[in-house]
Amino acid sequence: MSPVQRIIPPALQGVYDNWHFAPAVVADGLIFCSGIIGTSPNGDTPDADGLAGAKATTQEASNDLTALMAVRDPEAQFATAFKALSAILRAADAELSDVVELTTYHVDMSRHMDTFMRVKDHYIQAPYPAWTAIGVAELIVPGGLLEIRAVAQVPSGGIGRLSRLESGASV
Amino acid sequence: MSPVQRIIPPALQGVYDNWHFAPAVVADGLIFCSGIIGTSPNGDTPDADGLAGAKATTQEASNDLTALMAVRDPEAQFATAFKALSAILRAADAELSDVVELTTYHVDMSRHMDTFMRVKDHYIQAPYPAWTAIGVAELIVPGGLLEIRAVAQVPSGGIGRLSRLESGASV
Amino acid sequence: MSPVQRIIPPALQGVYDNWHFAPAVVADGLIFCSGIIGTSPNGDTPDADGLAGAKATTQEASNDLTALMAVRDPEAQFATAFKALSAILRAADAELSDVVELTTYHVDMSRHMDTFMRVKDHYIQAPYPAWTAIGVAELIVPGGLLEIRAVAQVPSGGIGRLSRLESGASV
Repeated sequence: MSPVQRIIPPALQGVYDNWHFAPAVVADGLIFCSGIIGTSPNGDTPDADGLAGAKATTQEASNDLTALMAVRDPEAQFATAFKALSAILRAADAELSDVVELTTYHVDMSRHMDTFMRVKDHYIQAPYPAWTAIGVAELIVPGGLLEIRAVAQVPSGGIGRLSRLESGASV
Repeated sequence: MSPVQRIIPPALQGVYDNWHFAPAVVADGLIFCSGIIGTSPNGDTPDADGLAGAKATTQEASNDLTALMAVRDPEAQFATAFKALSAILRAADAELSDVVELTTYHVDMSRHMDTFMRVKDHYIQAPYPAWTAIGVAELIVPGGLLEIRAVAQVPSGGIGRLSRLESGASV
Repeated sequence: MSPVQRIIPPALQGVYDNWHFAPAVVADGLIFCSGIIGTSPNGDTPDADGLAGAKATTQEASNDLTALMAVRDPEAQFATAFKALSAILRAADAELSDVVELTTYHVDMSRHMDTFMRVKDHYIQAPYPAWTAIGVAELIVPGGLLEIRAVAQVPSGGIGRLSRLESGASV
């Protein structure tokens, strides 16, 4: 049994420290990613890797999760969520093509599904993962329309230098 | 680390090609199944293996997921979802008894739970899997009352001839 | 491939026998826990390990899942759910610190999130798991505000004497 590893990209250290969950955890050959909503520092469409909203919000340690701002434009919000997922996987030396199971939670699902499918097709390419889509009542971030949860397989070669090893191993 | 495999029963090739997700993916000894709703070509109760609705709908490549028709009768809809799950697992040389975790998403949960429990008992027999049941706002298929997501363990002996190997291996 | 194991604490034998799901299942190095709602025999705040509600309710074999009573006080209900999760993991010789992925389903999420975060911080301590939180329409137990689903890694040393081995092995 390999030790469990937490994956914390530097931009999300505040998520781990203030809100007490890991962006992703590696256990038993699989990477379990936390639910991701497309946020930005002010709700505008970000040009960065999708982590800027969480990074900015967690700089104020007293901010809770509802201080995050969802990207206002739905298509941009969905793209931001996939970019954030990609950035988190990259911190585990993995990428979107390593995703084996995708679970997507949607507010106002039927209204936004066409847009979502277009964005999904941009980021998730063949060979495709398993997928479950669910219409939900509410997400934790105000204005959030989509939360993505993913499980990826650890790429052959393993988790690399960007990740943090648990149990005191030096990084 | 074994290579990831996509499980695509022939009847669901159009799901993979048109809607860009795999009915199931095998990774690291586990079979991750996509969310399944009980559908049929016209909403009538099907007599087949639960895949006929998706097969018929994907023959028209321009159809999106909302062109699927949920089976109108709730009990038959639930049975169809379990039959479809069974057929997908069979394509991985697995069966319902290999399921280790079942997640069921319900529209109008309290109204249909008695019926659901009866159908679940017919298809899921001892030894039982873990189970999480959630009442949701909406499912992707109009009229859908239940979506089943399952994780199964790869049966000893492994995934067989009906599955598709990734990375160019011949089947 | 190790055989699949069902984890059934003695207090939850009735859950397995009457409602036909396992409190947790061990497969492939991971412990998949069923969704847990904080219940008690009469809705009062329990002082036990969180399993008393299910134990009492299943003593009457004809009771269905909706006969469970959620703990009325939200904070106590959340604490009871974590205590129950802890008790189930203990039956697998694991503990809350072995959880790698937490999925929490919330009714009236925004109203109760502050309380939930406080309770989560009490039970889930560093190093933290991955986490997905979703606002849902309804849970199976009347008055249920939170359902917790967890995946844990089998601790090194493996699953111990309290668990039940499948396939006829003596315990």
